[in-house]
Amino acid sequence: MRLPRRSFCFLRSLLSHRQTANPQRRGLTGAAMRLVQFHHHGDRDVRLGVEQGDGLGVVDLKAFDPSMPSTVRELLELGDQGLKSAQRALASGQCVVERSHIQLLSPVLSPEKVVCVGMNYRDHCLEQNAPIPKEPIIFSKFPNAITGPYDDITLPSESQEVDWEVELAFVIGRRGKHIKEEDALSYVAGFTVANDVSARDWQMKRNGKQWLLGKTFDSFCPLGPALVTTDAVKDPHNLGIRCLVNGETVQSSNTDQMIFKTAELVTWVSKFVTLTPGDVFLTGTPPGVGVFRKPPVFLKKGDVVECQIDQLGSIINKVV
Amino acid sequence: MRLPRRSFCFLRSLLSHRQTANPQRRGLTGAAMRLVQFHHHGDRDVRLGVEQGDGLGVVDLKAFDPSMPSTVRELLELGDQGLKSAQRALASGQCVVERSHIQLLSPVLSPEKVVCVGMNYRDHCLEQNAPIPKEPIIFSKFPNAITGPYDDITLPSESQEVDWEVELAFVIGRRGKHIKEEDALSYVAGFTVANDVSARDWQMKRNGKQWLLGKTFDSFCPLGPALVTTDAVKDPHNLGIRCLVNGETVQSSNTDQMIFKTAELVTWVSKFVTLTPGDVFLTGTPPGVGVFRKPPVFLKKGDVVECQIDQLGSIINKVV
Repeated sequence: MRLPRRSFCFLRSLLSHRQTANPQRRGLTGAAMRLVQFHHHGDRDVRLGVEQGDGLGVVDLKAFDPSMPSTVRELLELGDQGLKSAQRALASGQCVVERSHIQLLSPVLSPEKVVCVGMNYRDHCLEQNAPIPKEPIIFSKFPNAITGPYDDITLPSESQEVDWEVELAFVIGRRGKHIKEEDALSYVAGFTVANDVSARDWQMKRNGKQWLLGKTFDSFCPLGPALVTTDAVKDPHNLGIRCLVNGETVQSSNTDQMIFKTAELVTWVSKFVTLTPGDVFLTGTPPGVGVFRKPPVFLKKGDVVECQIDQLGSIINKVV
Repeated sequence: MRLPRRSFCFLRSLLSHRQTANPQRRGLTGAAMRLVQFHHHGDRDVRLGVEQGDGLGVVDLKAFDPSMPSTVRELLELGDQGLKSAQRALASGQCVVERSHIQLLSPVLSPEKVVCVGMNYRDHCLEQNAPIPKEPIIFSKFPNAITGPYDDITLPSESQEVDWEVELAFVIGRRGKHIKEEDALSYVAGFTVANDVSARDWQMKRNGKQWLLGKTFDSFCPLGPALVTTDAVKDPHNLGIRCLVNGETVQSSNTDQMIFKTAELVTWVSKFVTLTPGDVFLTGTPPGVGVFRKPPVFLKKGDVVECQIDQLGSIINKVV
């Protein structure tokens, strides 16, 4: 049933492409887009799309043009040309699938790196009486931790202290090493919302105090709902950022509290490693996490965690 | 020039396949093989091969059968069927390329995870007066750190304390979570030699004492020369393991000193994360590293580091 529909869409898109060959008519103004990855219900194939707006219909890029890639990472690897093709598809208003027909996935599924930053909000440092770091503190999750914007967080039987952390995430758009701070933003494809779910017992008391294990359980990195391209975000360091557990606000701050901002983090990490398209950065969490409450509060089965960032959207994950 | 030669090899292999269709004649005895990845000189394509023996000619699997995958990770994802096809190619004695015509790459290039184990040799704990850990200490490198068995280690200007660490590495062959210890070895595709190059200043004194940055500079994980399949290694926990710097032996021990052995490590890490084909584990280093010498010794430009493990082979990397 689906294949003929898509093919029909492709044919229409060919006509549309001719009609909109004039750039003025296409209305291309930078790369402002909300890129998503999704499944059609009952299908396992990852598909690449562009939202018509937060929570609105999604243009299926491969339906518009079968030569388009299937993942955001592959699209980013094509550089500007890939983003322009995606924009053309969005501008066509064709090949739109309704939200009720699809399941959104994380906008990046298999990055080479998930780079995380610790202690990167002034107000979060104050909360735990910790000094403001003079250099970024970098740790990591393995990509297995990534899960979709509305997928479940699986509470592992190995931890009794699973905590929330809403974070601004960004995704690298092109390959680079030793990137200068003044060039750094041109290496960033866009921004999204993350929950840096953390098993505090494993992070703080075990594994020789190396944070990795406590941070990287399967499903401990919900991401999404969309990769909002850099041009579409007015000022990523002036965004309201909130976490709600079962509807109650537990974290509420602004990304202007970040100590090391996007460009500084790109420059810093690229001293050590070559960055590649699709690399995900989680930039640290504001105050209000469960472990520093008195008494501490941790997630339990049935809880619903919502992480919100202005202009980017919300991810909502049930704890199971 | 090359394409016709390979095609000819493929035609011969078709004939050979008919002649050896009887399993007895093929002599398949488990999956004992030395899998390698390589470039033809002057070519950027990654190719998959099987060594005829340590340092001997390499059977080019895609030349033998164009339907074969191009990487070890893809081969492992095919399961037993993939390994059997590789074995058939090796048994044919055809499509062999000479070592002088190729450059060996790391046997795994883009794993989802590089899982590292700290403090995992009894004698290495004694060396630094550290207690024997009761649980494995797990940290990670990003895949950008991986480099070939004879490639250069790039000394970063950011570190003055770059050190060597010869390690037994193993590679996961199939997907699994919560793997029981008695089943664990069946999840291991094989073993190889690693150098867990470490910037001690960044590992031990900076980055909030999170080891990641000191461990993950580009080129800080030479691997190879081959992925020696599990069936080909008599006892991975009774192998001489050595590191030589400029020809002088600086580490010399035996893998029987490992505190947590292969099966325990698979079981432990799979409590946290789903393991996938191609995941690389570095299992810790014996004593003799530079940082614990009196006075400490670190790598400098022009040094040549050779890591050797019995039955697996040697990797030799120049510091530049």
